[in-house]
Amino acid sequence: MSDAPVCEHRLRRRVQFYETDAGGIVHFSVYFRYMEEAEHALWRAAGLSIHDRDAGFGWPRVHASFDYHRPLRFEEEFEAWIRIVAIEEKTITYACVLSRADTKIATGRFTIACASCRPNEPMRGMAIPPEIRARFAVQP
Amino acid sequence: MSDAPVCEHRLRRRVQFYETDAGGIVHFSVYFRYMEEAEHALWRAAGLSIHDRDAGFGWPRVHASFDYHRPLRFEEEFEAWIRIVAIEEKTITYACVLSRADTKIATGRFTIACASCRPNEPMRGMAIPPEIRARFAVQP
Amino acid sequence: MSDAPVCEHRLRRRVQFYETDAGGIVHFSVYFRYMEEAEHALWRAAGLSIHDRDAGFGWPRVHASFDYHRPLRFEEEFEAWIRIVAIEEKTITYACVLSRADTKIATGRFTIACASCRPNEPMRGMAIPPEIRARFAVQP
Amino acid sequence: MSDAPVCEHRLRRRVQFYETDAGGIVHFSVYFRYMEEAEHALWRAAGLSIHDRDAGFGWPRVHASFDYHRPLRFEEEFEAWIRIVAIEEKTITYACVLSRADTKIATGRFTIACASCRPNEPMRGMAIPPEIRARFAVQP
Repeated sequence: MSDAPVCEHRLRRRVQFYETDAGGIVHFSVYFRYMEEAEHALWRAAGLSIHDRDAGFGWPRVHASFDYHRPLRFEEEFEAWIRIVAIEEKTITYACVLSRADTKIATGRFTIACASCRPNEPMRGMAIPPEIRARFAVQP
Repeated sequence: MSDAPVCEHRLRRRVQFYETDAGGIVHFSVYFRYMEEAEHALWRAAGLSIHDRDAGFGWPRVHASFDYHRPLRFEEEFEAWIRIVAIEEKTITYACVLSRADTKIATGRFTIACASCRPNEPMRGMAIPPEIRARFAVQP
Repeated sequence: MSDAPVCEHRLRRRVQFYETDAGGIVHFSVYFRYMEEAEHALWRAAGLSIHDRDAGFGWPRVHASFDYHRPLRFEEEFEAWIRIVAIEEKTITYACVLSRADTKIATGRFTIACASCRPNEPMRGMAIPPEIRARFAVQP
Repeated sequence: MSDAPVCEHRLRRRVQFYETDAGGIVHFSVYFRYMEEAEHALWRAAGLSIHDRDAGFGWPRVHASFDYHRPLRFEEEFEAWIRIVAIEEKTITYACVLSRADTKIATGRFTIACASCRPNEPMRGMAIPPEIRARFAVQP
């Protein structure tokens, strides 16, 4: 792991049987899990974990979307390419492309917010801590 | 069940434990399952099933999104209110609001496309069959 | 809700699309979620919640099994009948039968243990608190 | 891939966030998905796919169980070691051990049956085809 800020990550993955539905294809809700899986791998590549029980804050999603172009089927291999497209004071926005070989499968986008998470208190938005901010860059 | 076309549906639901994550709240991908659950209940209210193995066509999603306003927690009761906001030649678009009592939890939107699904052939968009089209109306 | 101890519960449920797999039937792992859903409804019928963030203890599973007799398909309605078959000092054991009309679908069994869950400490088995023990009975 | 029959497989895996629950650990139903994931990797190592849409038969589970020894948490790495412990005329039985470094996490067991799956007919048990039988061996 280098000290350079991280702006993107490519995850290789195979479709698991429990991710398919009776239509014979990956259930549309599972694409959001693929996108999250790629995001957390990006955080690890930056030397961070997105979920630290003792930190007192977390990263709830505030927006998530996917446009679906082609289906994915059991055992197919695909790539989830995630990149950071914006960093604001309290939020990070990613874009994500799923592809199988040269075929674009789906295009996603989601935004997470930094929020304090203390027991018995409502979550509240807060500025991204500078030591975390410093580990990420917007993809040029 | 009446013969009148259907334009909306309200589903009452309780959060299940397996829908939560280590952040202590419902995982963001599960909201899409809630929206789908409400959609299928709307279809049943129209006298239809969205998944008919012998029909030769199905309803893949082409777009799905959620904006998240508040978290949901284990055992909380909520309502998923889905309504049809557009019907085109080959697609149906829904809007969906999740709420807990008077609190708006999340706002979703998704579009499904009618597509022929024959074994060993790629899915292909097709016009919505008139007998299905006739069962639905756009919410005024 | 009466004050009498609770020993069983019957949950009515419909199969959701996201619970099916590419084999066209409910994925075998989902049966464990149905069993858990019935268990938590049984706890609510006893006036309790199985997951209390402030309690300092929880109920991890120590054993879970299912024998599968018949498949379940999308939109089928079924019943999950759960009953308490044993209460030991630290554990509760349930049996669960899933059925669709008169057809037995599957037979499950699982055991939960009472365990202290304090931040940064390993879970440790503990005696079931008497006020919880008093709310349950073994089905005769 | 060699021509020798396959009797076991070891899968390396990391816990994903969507696999955890509000108790802060992997949901107990997810262990069954890990076991299945290892099984399908074993089949691929044998040059086979467990789900072939055109085969006219499939492999429903008839029994599945887990004993849980220790929890798994977000981002922990673990191994799922699956081995074939019995092959009968119509069924295959596996044992599976999940471990994290030297810690045994859980011990599973499940049995699948070969069954004809034709549209609009009930599943029916059938003898394992010899070309599939020949690819597997019971672990000595």
